[in-house]
This record gives sequence, structure tokens and C-alpha cells, in this order.
Amino acid sequence: MDRIRRAEEDDHARIVEAIGTWWSDSRSPQAARELSMLVPRLFLQHFAGTSFVIERDGGFLGFLVGFVSQDHPEQAYVHFVGVDPARRRGGVARRLYEAFFDIARQAGCTTVKCVTSPVNTGSVGFHRRMGFSLVPGDHEVDGLPVQGDYDGLGQDRVCFVRELA
Amino acid sequence: MDRIRRAEEDDHARIVEAIGTWWSDSRSPQAARELSMLVPRLFLQHFAGTSFVIERDGGFLGFLVGFVSQDHPEQAYVHFVGVDPARRRGGVARRLYEAFFDIARQAGCTTVKCVTSPVNTGSVGFHRRMGFSLVPGDHEVDGLPVQGDYDGLGQDRVCFVRELA
Repeated sequence: MDRIRRAEEDDHARIVEAIGTWWSDSRSPQAARELSMLVPRLFLQHFAGTSFVIERDGGFLGFLVGFVSQDHPEQAYVHFVGVDPARRRGGVARRLYEAFFDIARQAGCTTVKCVTSPVNTGSVGFHRRMGFSLVPGDHEVDGLPVQGDYDGLGQDRVCFVRELA
Repeated sequence: MDRIRRAEEDDHARIVEAIGTWWSDSRSPQAARELSMLVPRLFLQHFAGTSFVIERDGGFLGFLVGFVSQDHPEQAYVHFVGVDPARRRGGVARRLYEAFFDIARQAGCTTVKCVTSPVNTGSVGFHRRMGFSLVPGDHEVDGLPVQGDYDGLGQDRVCFVRELA
């Protein structure tokens, strides 16, 4: 039985390892390692209360790292989500997001935001199914609104927002 | 005259550019670019209220990205600091940290934490001069207490803590 729980600092090493493994189909080992730099330990030390992991029989199936905006307390932000490729389309990501929505509502948030890469069409489709809207961009790629150089030069992003009813 | 102010979301592009430039003496362009992944836009969107920049005549001299821990509201955390190499040893970093200490105290924090790489002896010396203590590690490198694999495999760190009187 899959079990969802709050993340803990000790999950950091497994999250970094998972990023290196789970993204290895679409990225070089170097690029997967770079990706894991997006989740330094600080997120598991200081934002574990709004982050979750799903396990089964001790195995690690997925994680979500999110937080409540310090500057805009009515906004919650999903920073990084990973699901074991063997378990994709099995509802793991949905369960992680729903747990995050619940805790964000409890914290008084009214919206959730997140971003993804324009090439990650799977992620775009998932966020649409989860009720996110696409934020207008400064140009379009394959019909998607894209914000150019959003996270640095060449780091374009599609931006999402969802109301928390 | 150097001017310190709160960071804004629009500072993100300049911070990313500065990381690429200011670290280019000690790192390859690729490694400097990787480093900038540690400061995705989210920090300037959601933690700008506890982040600062110093400018002079429109030029960008330094920045500090920090936050109050969501899980441990008595702790503040300095995530990333950069100073123009031409202005190092000129008090820019000290001014950034003191502004951060002030705002952390106003937010009710009693301690500030941060980490650095064991090879960054300049950073270790600076943090000692700023009143930080070194947190015990799991091994020593050149007499420094180091936490191995702290931020992922091979990503050792020296950890600092400072009380806010």
C-alpha cells in the first residue's frame, strides 16, 4: 500500500539520488546531477512541513517539495516534484499535489503556483488536468505561452496558477 | 555612494548574470552557470523581503538571498551571497549580512544559519569574522569540521550558526 507522509531532512539524500535515477532516461548523468542542484538540503530543513514523499514497502515512489510564499502568504508554490518513472500515470503525482493543496489551504493560501520547462509536455498536460491555468507568456512555443529567460539565459518556463477553492 | 535596498523580482536576471561573471575567475563558464541554478527566480518572487542588493550609480555590487525558516520560525537562513570581486574586502558582504541580521531579528529569529564549501576558505574566514560558529561535522578537512555529502554526493559543506543577540 502506498503511504504518503511529510518529508523529513533525512529524505534529502534519497531525493537527490532519485533525481539522478528517474531523470536519466531524458538527460545525461551530468544534466541529471545539475537538476538535483535545484533541491539543496535547505528545502528539506526549512520547508519539510509543506513537502511530501510517497513510499511503498520502504521504496521511494515520489516526492513534492513546496512552500508557502514568505512575501505573499496567500500563495503556495510547488518547487519540485518527482515520480518514479515505473509508477507514472498511477496517481502518485496527483496524490502529492492534493496533499499539498490541503496543507496550503490550511495555511490560508488561496492560490498555488509552479513552473515547468516548455519541452516538458507531460508536465504541461498533468498541470492542466490538475486544474492549473497557464499564465500568459512573452512568446509562444507550439501553442504554449512561454516566459523567455525566466530562470536565467535560455531557461524558458511555462507558468501555472491554480485557485484553491 | 553604495545603496542597500530590498531585492525585487526584477533583480533575478542581474543576479544570475553576476554569478556567471563574478565566479568566472574560479570556475569554468559551465560551472558558473550551474551555480546560478542555486538561485532560481522563486527566491526573488517569494523571499525578496529578506533579500538585499547593494548598488552604486546603477551598478550592481552585491546581493544576499535569505529567508526565515518556515519549519523553524526562530531560525533565519542565508542561502546565497555574491559580491563583485572588484569590491571584495570593502565591507559589502558585511553590510548585506547586517541588514539580514536586522530583518531576521525583527521577524523574531534568534539564530542565523548558512553553509559553504570546505574549499572556500575565504568564506569560512568571513563567517568567523561575522560571529558565526562552525557546526561539528562528520570529518575534518584542513582542520575544518565538514559534513560529507551534505548537499548530495560529493557536495560536502561547512555549516555555520550565529546567535542573534
